[in-house]
Amino acid sequence: MEQVKTIYAEEMQRVLNTLFVKNNFNSKQAECLAEVHTENTLNGVFSHGINRVPQFIQCVKEGFVNPQAQAKKIEQFGSIERWDGCSASGVLNAISCTHRAIELARDNGMGLVALRNTNHWMRAGYYGWLAAQHGCIGILFTNTKANMPAWGGKENRLGNNPLVVSIPKESGHIVLDMALSQFSFGKIHEYALNDAPLPFHGGWDENYEITTKPESILATESGIPIGYWKGSALSMVLDMLATLLAAGNSTYQVEKIEQETNVSQVFLCIDTNTFHDKHLQQNLLQEIIDYTASATPTDQNQQIYYPGQRAMATKQRNLSQGMAVNNAIWEEVLSLL
Amino acid sequence: MEQVKTIYAEEMQRVLNTLFVKNNFNSKQAECLAEVHTENTLNGVFSHGINRVPQFIQCVKEGFVNPQAQAKKIEQFGSIERWDGCSASGVLNAISCTHRAIELARDNGMGLVALRNTNHWMRAGYYGWLAAQHGCIGILFTNTKANMPAWGGKENRLGNNPLVVSIPKESGHIVLDMALSQFSFGKIHEYALNDAPLPFHGGWDENYEITTKPESILATESGIPIGYWKGSALSMVLDMLATLLAAGNSTYQVEKIEQETNVSQVFLCIDTNTFHDKHLQQNLLQEIIDYTASATPTDQNQQIYYPGQRAMATKQRNLSQGMAVNNAIWEEVLSLL
Repeated sequence: MEQVKTIYAEEMQRVLNTLFVKNNFNSKQAECLAEVHTENTLNGVFSHGINRVPQFIQCVKEGFVNPQAQAKKIEQFGSIERWDGCSASGVLNAISCTHRAIELARDNGMGLVALRNTNHWMRAGYYGWLAAQHGCIGILFTNTKANMPAWGGKENRLGNNPLVVSIPKESGHIVLDMALSQFSFGKIHEYALNDAPLPFHGGWDENYEITTKPESILATESGIPIGYWKGSALSMVLDMLATLLAAGNSTYQVEKIEQETNVSQVFLCIDTNTFHDKHLQQNLLQEIIDYTASATPTDQNQQIYYPGQRAMATKQRNLSQGMAVNNAIWEEVLSLL
Repeated sequence: MEQVKTIYAEEMQRVLNTLFVKNNFNSKQAECLAEVHTENTLNGVFSHGINRVPQFIQCVKEGFVNPQAQAKKIEQFGSIERWDGCSASGVLNAISCTHRAIELARDNGMGLVALRNTNHWMRAGYYGWLAAQHGCIGILFTNTKANMPAWGGKENRLGNNPLVVSIPKESGHIVLDMALSQFSFGKIHEYALNDAPLPFHGGWDENYEITTKPESILATESGIPIGYWKGSALSMVLDMLATLLAAGNSTYQVEKIEQETNVSQVFLCIDTNTFHDKHLQQNLLQEIIDYTASATPTDQNQQIYYPGQRAMATKQRNLSQGMAVNNAIWEEVLSLL
C-alpha cells in the first residue's frame, strides 16, 4: 500500500458528510463539519483536518461530543454574551459563536462571545478566516488541558491555549494562528521519527532540564511556552480570561476530566466595516507587509511571509493538485462509513 | 560618590512635580506625570521610571512632546473611539484613553480607544493596573520603532510592541506586561556589563546568526521575538491592529521619523462589574493561581508567581525601604530643576 493517496476536496467532503450523517449529525451539521475538516486539510493542517476525524468520531461514540446538542445563549451584558456549548461539537459551537460575535460587532463596533462547555474546535485559524471573510478583525482563543509546566515549576500546569488574530485584507486575509507552545507535539513527533534534534528548545527532559531532544519531550509530555517565562504568563492570562468571561472550566478543571472536553473559549470581533476609511486601512496593511518583506531574506530561496500567506498558497495548491492524505488514515475513515 | 542613593516615594514625587511644572506642564499634569514616574520606579521598572526622566525632558525641549497639547476624540463607531494624541505626553494620553475605554466599557460591557500620534507611554503595565483598579480587564498594546528583524529577514522591520493583559483580582490584580522581544536592550546591556552570556537566544550577531552574546546583539541592535517565528507574527499583527484601528502610524512610518514619536496604541477594556457573579470569578482566578503554584518549584528557593505578583511585592518593599536610585541619574534630575 502506498503511504499517501491523493484525495481531492470534493471527494473528502462527500465521504466525511456521509460519515457525520451516519454518526447522528443532521444534514446541515454534517455538511458544515465535512466542510471544516476538508478546509483544514486543504490549508495543510492535516492534524486538525482529516487526521483527526477518527478521534472525533470516537468522541461522539463515547458521548463527549453530543450530536443532538446545540450551543445556547445564557446571558448578555451589553455587547458581551455568554454561551453554553452543551457538549455539542466544538466546530459547530465555534462557528455559531463566531457568527454571533460578528453580529454583535455589526451593531456595536465590536462584540464578544464567551463559550463554556465546548469541545475541541480543531484548527483555531478556521474561525479567524471566517471573521475576516465577514470583514471583521477576530481575536479568538481557547484553553486546553495542561501540557506545559509554568515557568519555575516542574509539572504541567498550563495549556498551550491556541490564539488567533485575524485581519481582513482584500488581497488575502491576515490570519495568525498559533498555540503558545514553541512546538506542537505533532511536530516534535516528526523530528523524533527523523532522529533529528529540534532547531530550538522545545520542552523538558526527565531531569527537568530544558532540551531540544524530541524523544525526551515526548517522554515527559512537557513542552515549553514561546518565550519561556513570557509565554508562560501569556498562557496563564488567556486561561484566566476564557474561564472568567465564560464562567467556564479552567485548564485546572479540564485536567480533572479524563478527556479534554468542556473547555472555555473567547470570540472577540471588531467590524472593520464600521470605519469609513476602508481604502486607507488596506493601504496601511499593505505598507506594513511590503516593508516587512523588503528585508534581505536569510535564506535566498525564501521570502518573508505575513501570517496566513502560506496557508492560502497551500490551499490553492491542494485544491488544484489534491491533498496527499496518509493512506492508513484514509482507509480508517472509509472503514467507519 | 555612592553608586546608589535611597529615595523615598514622597521625595521623588515632589522633585519630579517641580521639574515637570518648570517644563511647562500645568500643575495637574505635572502631578500626574510625577505620580506615574514614581509609581513605575516603585514597581521596580527604573528604566521607565526615574531613569527615563532626563530623556523625557529632552523630548519636551526638542518639541517631540508638547506640554500644551491634549489628546482629543476624532471619531466614534459604537463602543470604539479613535483619538489623536496631538503629540502630547504619552503618559497623559494613555491615562486619558484608559479612562475613556473604562467609561465605554461601563456603558457597553466593553470599550476600545485607539490612539494615534502619541509618545512613549513609559511602563505599559501602569495602564493595566489602572484598568484593573477600576474593575476592568485591560488588553493594551503599542507599536514602536523597528528593533527586531521579522523571521526570515535580516534587517529590523518589527517593533517589540509591548502588550499588557490585566485582570482585576481582589487580593492583588493580575497584570502581564511584556514586550515581544525575548530580552530588553536594558537587560542585554546588564549581561554585557557582567561579561556573561544570555541564558537563552536574545538576538542576532554581525553574521546574522542567532546568538546569546550580549555584545553582538548590542552591536547589531537586532533582538529576537519571543518564540522566534511565532512572536515575529504576533508583533506584526499587533502593529497592524494598532495602525488600522487608530488610522495612525505603523512601525514602518515611525521608523521614518528621526525620533520614536507619533506611535499608535490600543486600549481595550472589559468591565467585570458587568457580570453578576463576581464571587465566582474571584474563585475561578484563585483556583488557577493555586493550581499553577502547586507544582514543584525548579528552584527550591523560589515560588511560582502569577503575572503582577512580584511587581506588587517590589512596590511594597520600595515603599517601606525606599528606592535604590542610581546616584548619577538622581543628580542629573536635580540639575534639571
